Amino acid sequence: MASMEIKPLKPRIKKDEIARGDVSGLIGMVGNQTRGSMSITFEEGLALEIMQNMLGEKPHGLNEEVTDMVGEITNMVTGGAKRILAENGFDFDMATPVVVSGKGHTIRHKCDGAIILMPFTSEWGNAFIEICFE
Amino acid sequence: MASMEIKPLKPRIKKDEIARGDVSGLIGMVGNQTRGSMSITFEEGLALEIMQNMLGEKPHGLNEEVTDMVGEITNMVTGGAKRILAENGFDFDMATPVVVSGKGHTIRHKCDGAIILMPFTSEWGNAFIEICFE
Repeated sequence: MASMEIKPLKPRIKKDEIARGDVSGLIGMVGNQTRGSMSITFEEGLALEIMQNMLGEKPHGLNEEVTDMVGEITNMVTGGAKRILAENGFDFDMATPVVVSGKGHTIRHKCDGAIILMPFTSEWGNAFIEICFE
Repeated sequence: MASMEIKPLKPRIKKDEIARGDVSGLIGMVGNQTRGSMSITFEEGLALEIMQNMLGEKPHGLNEEVTDMVGEITNMVTGGAKRILAENGFDFDMATPVVVSGKGHTIRHKCDGAIILMPFTSEWGNAFIEICFE
């Protein structure tokens, strides 16, 4: 949608490391078998570049248009995961997303399960998807 | 639990104003009739004072003990709301909480419904509960 190349790095189990970013979308998930949470965190430069490519102009900072876009991306990523997992017999419902902005914030999923960290890199900055199911 | 006096201010519908804080617990909620999200945001001074009163010593910053406590408070507050709403015929399930830390971050609930903002004040700093159901 944003005509950008973003390179996925090797997914891994998140242990002590802490992903830092400037704007994050978070969403809760509830199913019969399990519950959990997902986050997608962007560095500011990457979030602004995505906005520029989608809207044709670059916002001056992490304004409400950017957080709306991050909320939408959060819904899309979780919706994709929901569909794939449902085909494999794991059904869950999504809560509504929450978007956090703040320079260099960190996120901790308080969930009794492994946290999968999927890093992405690009020339404009990094992004991280984290997902945890109990 | 923390033997502290925290003064609730008048709850209101959040419009353009943005609550700022240093550590927040966020949780998603999913029910048959509705879904939504809740957040509780603390200024650092208040979060550290709660830790001191509960553990007997004050941490040097927003470490993992503090974020664990904020995650627990998030579960407790949402659990209380869940019980009261269930008695009134509104059932929902809670996802797992996510805790964000970062100086002066802001939170936006991306939910098609009014956002109720409940401010609290104390001599150590402020806290805000925000809740939104679709």
